[in-house]
Amino acid sequence: MPILLYDLVGADTGRPFSPHCWKVAMALAHKGLEFTSMPAPFTQIPALEGGATKIVPLIRDGETLVSDSFDIALYLEETYPDRPTLFGGEGGKAMARFVERWSQLTIHPFLGTAILMEIHDCLAPEDQAHFRRTREPRFGKPIEEVPLDRDDRLAGFRASLEPLRSMLTYQPFIGGASPLFSDYIVFGAFQFARVVSPYQALAGDDPIRDWFERCLALHGGLGARVPAAA
Amino acid sequence: MPILLYDLVGADTGRPFSPHCWKVAMALAHKGLEFTSMPAPFTQIPALEGGATKIVPLIRDGETLVSDSFDIALYLEETYPDRPTLFGGEGGKAMARFVERWSQLTIHPFLGTAILMEIHDCLAPEDQAHFRRTREPRFGKPIEEVPLDRDDRLAGFRASLEPLRSMLTYQPFIGGASPLFSDYIVFGAFQFARVVSPYQALAGDDPIRDWFERCLALHGGLGARVPAAA
Repeated sequence: MPILLYDLVGADTGRPFSPHCWKVAMALAHKGLEFTSMPAPFTQIPALEGGATKIVPLIRDGETLVSDSFDIALYLEETYPDRPTLFGGEGGKAMARFVERWSQLTIHPFLGTAILMEIHDCLAPEDQAHFRRTREPRFGKPIEEVPLDRDDRLAGFRASLEPLRSMLTYQPFIGGASPLFSDYIVFGAFQFARVVSPYQALAGDDPIRDWFERCLALHGGLGARVPAAA
Repeated sequence: MPILLYDLVGADTGRPFSPHCWKVAMALAHKGLEFTSMPAPFTQIPALEGGATKIVPLIRDGETLVSDSFDIALYLEETYPDRPTLFGGEGGKAMARFVERWSQLTIHPFLGTAILMEIHDCLAPEDQAHFRRTREPRFGKPIEEVPLDRDDRLAGFRASLEPLRSMLTYQPFIGGASPLFSDYIVFGAFQFARVVSPYQALAGDDPIRDWFERCLALHGGLGARVPAAA
């Protein structure tokens, strides 16, 4: 029986967009595990699997439920040790946490605000109301105002990616010669942006684009199967 | 015969201060390899080993010369595979490069300018002249002016360390439960600052300090043996 991946979607259930769900989809494909993406809009998450989680991704693997993308990757690595490794050993497992923290604190604060309205706009009406109700207290302003300064912040964001860009002068993937979960961590963030919004966070000649294209092509073009937002 | 580590020093040859040499000293100790630190002031580097290198660290291991701290770590890992690992596998080797690029582009630009005059002041007179001559064109101003805004930049620097700080809420070392070369990469930067200058780049209650203290205590207190600058 394939693994179930509860996968965040908006009005179009064929366009999963959560960065964290994308990390897991790529990890499952990397392990060569069959999985079924189960569309999960924001307001239906609390009802999934009898209230098993407040967040997605959530996976069901037989009788086992696991949520949180990093915990899912650890679970897959432990449960399927004979499949291709997601971490490349204990050192890679530890350092993937650093990559995750870097991604979460460098990439997400920009992308998550820059395309906030496009996230809202892709949701079904009941999820739009939920999104506004939960996000506006967090930002302390109407969601319409959050992205207004995105162009002013863009140069700073691009500069903050220099460690990733510089690393790519040494090797084609964060994982080295081939991708590991650490690549999927960062891929998830940019794939989220690609699926949700036509806003171009990366300059046209940024070598990070080449890496992203390499990631889109992985696992039979899993990421590329969802067309970019127009 | 112990490995020779050509180790950057100023007027006091007992206070090696190069961040990159410290990475290698810690890596050698991690591998349990005996080594002799050979004091190498700036102006004597070109004459080392018959002109073998323009930069330190440089190591001599028997007939083999290796420079560049990351290359030295790779060499030690390959040459001494039965000693404790510096990378924890291929994934850790790849991701250590990301940590290195992050450290080099996040920590070094701040520390290297904030304590520029204290570096100068700890050098012997002929090295001071060399230092000024090479650094002033790079910065486009007298070296005395480079650190003047360090207090204005301090809050931004501390904020930029958040990925490291956040990672430490998950595990005690970048390498996980115990340190790897990736820890020594970042340790080298802060140890450089500790040896050269009393300037406090980290707030007193920063959890990164606790990690740094753990690193100072490693390998029989190798890092702590050189007292902090007063």
